[in-house]
Amino acid sequence: VTRPFTSSLPFNVRYAETDQMGVAHHSQHVVWFEMARVQYMKDLGAPYSEVEKAGVYLVVTSVGVRYRRPAYFDEELVVSCWVEDLRSRMVRFAYSLERAADGSLVAEGHSEHIATDRSRRTVAIPQYLRAAIESAPGT
Amino acid sequence: VTRPFTSSLPFNVRYAETDQMGVAHHSQHVVWFEMARVQYMKDLGAPYSEVEKAGVYLVVTSVGVRYRRPAYFDEELVVSCWVEDLRSRMVRFAYSLERAADGSLVAEGHSEHIATDRSRRTVAIPQYLRAAIESAPGT
Amino acid sequence: VTRPFTSSLPFNVRYAETDQMGVAHHSQHVVWFEMARVQYMKDLGAPYSEVEKAGVYLVVTSVGVRYRRPAYFDEELVVSCWVEDLRSRMVRFAYSLERAADGSLVAEGHSEHIATDRSRRTVAIPQYLRAAIESAPGT
Amino acid sequence: VTRPFTSSLPFNVRYAETDQMGVAHHSQHVVWFEMARVQYMKDLGAPYSEVEKAGVYLVVTSVGVRYRRPAYFDEELVVSCWVEDLRSRMVRFAYSLERAADGSLVAEGHSEHIATDRSRRTVAIPQYLRAAIESAPGT
Repeated sequence: VTRPFTSSLPFNVRYAETDQMGVAHHSQHVVWFEMARVQYMKDLGAPYSEVEKAGVYLVVTSVGVRYRRPAYFDEELVVSCWVEDLRSRMVRFAYSLERAADGSLVAEGHSEHIATDRSRRTVAIPQYLRAAIESAPGT
Repeated sequence: VTRPFTSSLPFNVRYAETDQMGVAHHSQHVVWFEMARVQYMKDLGAPYSEVEKAGVYLVVTSVGVRYRRPAYFDEELVVSCWVEDLRSRMVRFAYSLERAADGSLVAEGHSEHIATDRSRRTVAIPQYLRAAIESAPGT
Repeated sequence: VTRPFTSSLPFNVRYAETDQMGVAHHSQHVVWFEMARVQYMKDLGAPYSEVEKAGVYLVVTSVGVRYRRPAYFDEELVVSCWVEDLRSRMVRFAYSLERAADGSLVAEGHSEHIATDRSRRTVAIPQYLRAAIESAPGT
Repeated sequence: VTRPFTSSLPFNVRYAETDQMGVAHHSQHVVWFEMARVQYMKDLGAPYSEVEKAGVYLVVTSVGVRYRRPAYFDEELVVSCWVEDLRSRMVRFAYSLERAADGSLVAEGHSEHIATDRSRRTVAIPQYLRAAIESAPGT
């Protein structure tokens, strides 16, 4: 069984991302997942900045996060992203967030997206994007 | 059938909360849900600031958001919060986010929390908090 | 001596705005100043959302903040904004941030802005905006 | 003339950091400056996480930013930090933010800090921190 094409990005927790509980605020994980999604599309050869310039937006329709361990200030984390489901009008990304030091799981989650044009009308996921996702080499 | 005790909070979308898609960024909804949860606990007579001072933290273990409509800069929204499930060691809040102008649904979601002490050890949800939630008047 | 036309906005510090020092993170003050600026323009009859729709952007060219007291979670603050300087191509706003409870000063600051069109070319501050600022009643 | 000891950190602008003007929101620069300050202290051998664990907080008393060019989504930037002034009870950091591609200046700024203990009482800048700053090799 192969694991789907996956992109990973290391980063350090910023001070501004912590809250008075002494850990990264739980809304940050959604931002970190997005960073991994941006990296995934870049690695795929379809950078999201280019997709938007071509007039297509991947609008988020749902997000879910499960938090397993706290993330501390300045700790190095690795966020990973892969595609879990791909349909004509929907793409579902999955994410994991791990500590760089020992690979222990900090959080996992997913997001679902539809494609729209500049007028926010739903359109099909662009064919070149579907093809890139489907042909990306798993491991 | 009664609706559980619910707290609501109006607010306007901040410019800093928008992104280059021209709408509020999807991570903001998690912050807005938290605002409603803080309001809920205040209305309950158990403000979260007091709960933390008493040494108890409500740590988020999962979050889910479904996005229905975009939220635009300066638009007035109303975020609401109620308790969907309450167990000895877990509480689940539910949320809705609506446009103030017409009540149309912008997003809905939930969060689950466990209680911990200052050393991040899981503890039971404090009895006074359980009692307050269970006796709060529905409508 | 009159005080210039001033807009004020009360709000409560959000949990997500705190950091592990146990106070609101210092970048938040810039966001709160912006909220007061948005309120100022609304009170002036020239909401920023309308200004942007008319194709004019007030681009920030400098910001300064002096922090006097910490801002704590859930504390009610009042942020105020007025115009300190107005030229053909620049407007300078000033801000104060106070505790609602006792009026004690939390922070003060300023921001300078130029006007641009959609192509980011500098343009004159729109005449209707200059007129509104200049004729706004001081106190 | 030597340039003082300087730390630099490359990063890419996050989508969540943009606003509807299509550029990074101006409050983000304050967060990026903080990232460079954290890197500076790490390079100095006095990581801020350790300083805090030792009971000393570097509390921000003022911040200033001058914005020169917009920062766009996914653009690679380099933020740099050095010490501009050091007194017994105050340290002033300076910052520059440049495009990685061509070194053009995006923003510059400064921040001033006092040291406090856990009870928010002002204390002297710790001697080991002063010594580390003063002996750091310029270029």
